[in-house]
Amino acid sequence: KIDGDRLWDSLMEMARIGPGVAGGNNRQTLTDADAEGRRLFQGWCENAGMTMSVDRMGNMFMRHEGAEPDLDPVYIGSHLDTQPTGGKYDGVLGVLAGLEVIRSIRDMGVKTRRPIVVTNWTNEEGTRFAPAMLASGVFAGIHDEDFANSREDAEGKRFGDELQRIGWRGDESPGDRKIHAMFEYHIEQGPILEAEGKQIGVVTHGQGLWWLQVTLTGKDAHTGSTPMDMRVNAGLGMARITEAVHRIAMDHQPNAVGAIGQANVYPNSRNVIPGKAVFTVDFRSPELDKLSSMRARLETDAAEIARELGLGIEIEPVGHFDPVTFDPELADMLRNAAGRLGYSHMDIVSGAGHDACWINRLAPTVMIMCPCVDGLSHNEAEEISPEWASAGADVLLHAALEAAEI
Amino acid sequence: KIDGDRLWDSLMEMARIGPGVAGGNNRQTLTDADAEGRRLFQGWCENAGMTMSVDRMGNMFMRHEGAEPDLDPVYIGSHLDTQPTGGKYDGVLGVLAGLEVIRSIRDMGVKTRRPIVVTNWTNEEGTRFAPAMLASGVFAGIHDEDFANSREDAEGKRFGDELQRIGWRGDESPGDRKIHAMFEYHIEQGPILEAEGKQIGVVTHGQGLWWLQVTLTGKDAHTGSTPMDMRVNAGLGMARITEAVHRIAMDHQPNAVGAIGQANVYPNSRNVIPGKAVFTVDFRSPELDKLSSMRARLETDAAEIARELGLGIEIEPVGHFDPVTFDPELADMLRNAAGRLGYSHMDIVSGAGHDACWINRLAPTVMIMCPCVDGLSHNEAEEISPEWASAGADVLLHAALEAAEI
Ligand SMILES: NC(=O)NCCC(=O)O
Ligand SMILES: NC(=O)NCCC(=O)O
Repeated sequence: KIDGDRLWDSLMEMARIGPGVAGGNNRQTLTDADAEGRRLFQGWCENAGMTMSVDRMGNMFMRHEGAEPDLDPVYIGSHLDTQPTGGKYDGVLGVLAGLEVIRSIRDMGVKTRRPIVVTNWTNEEGTRFAPAMLASGVFAGIHDEDFANSREDAEGKRFGDELQRIGWRGDESPGDRKIHAMFEYHIEQGPILEAEGKQIGVVTHGQGLWWLQVTLTGKDAHTGSTPMDMRVNAGLGMARITEAVHRIAMDHQPNAVGAIGQANVYPNSRNVIPGKAVFTVDFRSPELDKLSSMRARLETDAAEIARELGLGIEIEPVGHFDPVTFDPELADMLRNAAGRLGYSHMDIVSGAGHDACWINRLAPTVMIMCPCVDGLSHNEAEEISPEWASAGADVLLHAALEAAEI
Repeated sequence: KIDGDRLWDSLMEMARIGPGVAGGNNRQTLTDADAEGRRLFQGWCENAGMTMSVDRMGNMFMRHEGAEPDLDPVYIGSHLDTQPTGGKYDGVLGVLAGLEVIRSIRDMGVKTRRPIVVTNWTNEEGTRFAPAMLASGVFAGIHDEDFANSREDAEGKRFGDELQRIGWRGDESPGDRKIHAMFEYHIEQGPILEAEGKQIGVVTHGQGLWWLQVTLTGKDAHTGSTPMDMRVNAGLGMARITEAVHRIAMDHQPNAVGAIGQANVYPNSRNVIPGKAVFTVDFRSPELDKLSSMRARLETDAAEIARELGLGIEIEPVGHFDPVTFDPELADMLRNAAGRLGYSHMDIVSGAGHDACWINRLAPTVMIMCPCVDGLSHNEAEEISPEWASAGADVLLHAALEAAEI
């Protein structure tokens, strides 16, 4: 078993970097806080005898050597970046549990045949720079480097410039690595494991996603002196599309969700009818046909709403992945490990996107989940118990040892 | 007649300060650009022999002496502040036409019995600090100084601190002045004069207004992994209330308008269901009962929407004035002046709020309007013709001379 106290202490120490406003974290990707979190993680890894490589996307690869260094390594990883009002565990648990696996292996004095590489993937959250899982996506050949480097945040700062600025651009070519197997350990971010009373979720599938950025163009005008029939109100259009997104998701139940998380009107002045609205629709489903059907419905409904209100409309996809099926053999390793350790477990579908979804295209990949209180995530109040954290890390240790061939 | 070229040149010179992004202006109240605009206006007035007083709200009073300095002065004024994406004429025309009246009186070599005071009222727009017409409201005893000084902008900066910072806090006590009569000249900001082909609008009434700031509280949560039935989506609530505001205004036709100009969701991240939404409803009508009825309907409908979605709701009034009836004798002076000058004119209701609405409580007040292209205002593309600008200023000159007793 891993050392649960040590894992928890590391989680709490990392959480001190980029504190939020309500007990959680704001350690968004490529901020100074992100750089500081990376340095803390680097130090811990180097103390555990690991050696670092960094690629041109800022992805960090911390290598624990195997008895046979030429064999393809086993990877364990997730992300250290957070939402602007994020929790202390989303992503971080998967990275620090990877470190804890190495620390435990050293304590045990055993040596695996294969090397084990613990990874921090850059910009998993996709809040500052869309899309999510940007740097694992480049690693997997989904996006090219120029695309990633040119992504802009809300202030117009570019991903490439910010990566340079914080000093975490490496020189390794992204994707230039062999992977024997990859494990990602993550909090569930949903309510199922807690409701079912299970300690471990074996993630067999992941939902697919569409992010559609909609721009509506109307006409700025005075809220007082412009007659109702002369208005071209982009804010009203955004409202109607928000309702449409909700209705579309409800019409695709079960196994579908939809919402708008980011929404801005311009010029955003109390007495100006919004002449522009920009917002991002988020649709997900584990079923490819539902995902496609929701996108198609949105395009029809939004165009109709824009037409009725006289608004210009543009819809730009800013994030997408198909539903994912993870590796059945690795899933079996997790089930067996949980069984051996006496932890209750169930199969589960990931509601969120994860770096594992991209790496799954390159190599056998699987995810393992622990419950989180009330299924709450992307909220500073996100919470898990130390026992939940360790149970998953124990399973991760056993499965990693098996995959890395002890 | 006034000198139309000189008036137009001054308008264009002022428009160079705080340029917008699309040909208009961003010279929001209490910014450095506002301070610079004030200095330019001050210099012009002093060159025209006027003397300045400034009150503790930053209201500027530029006095042109009368033959009988002890008589109550005639006031002409409006505002130099603009919307974030505002036009070159909204407010500015009324201030610079006041200056042009004094320049013309000097050119003519005549002397009025009463002094004439040209005024720039602080924070008419209400965009940066709600409510609109804040400093004329303090002058008229509607708000107290502490209230005004404590108003905060979106970054939490206080009105009082910003006024101090830009160096335009005077020491005169707000409201400590006698007013014989007040004229405010403004662009219509609506489509009626242009549609009717009239050069001059004699403003007999002004619409009343309610600004209601709504805060909805839900729960930040992951857009992917949170099941639809566990969501408490403040953005969806905002969308439904936006639609309700539109419906309420349509149900009160004619003579009523409603919209939401300022709208923010939090944390405003693509993959976070908004846990909070803050937005301001703007309702207007020239009929008091419609104004009250719209507010009442909003409170009922919004509470119902919040209840259905499980959202917390708070509604705070952040701006209000009742419908206004301007002074009939001053209106007659305007009609007579327009008649004498051969300008077509009609009576009109102001759709927007103006400083004149507050000063009307203290002293006989009237407004005069010129057309604006397509009725467009609160838009950088706001436009008027030099001929329209001068016609109104000619009428203003004649009426001011009559009121100031030549
Ligand atoms: N795990 C997680 O929250 N990832 C962010 C990308 C997504 O929105 O699913
Ligand atoms: N005239 C004008 O646009 N005033 C701003 C206050 C309002 O919204 O009516």
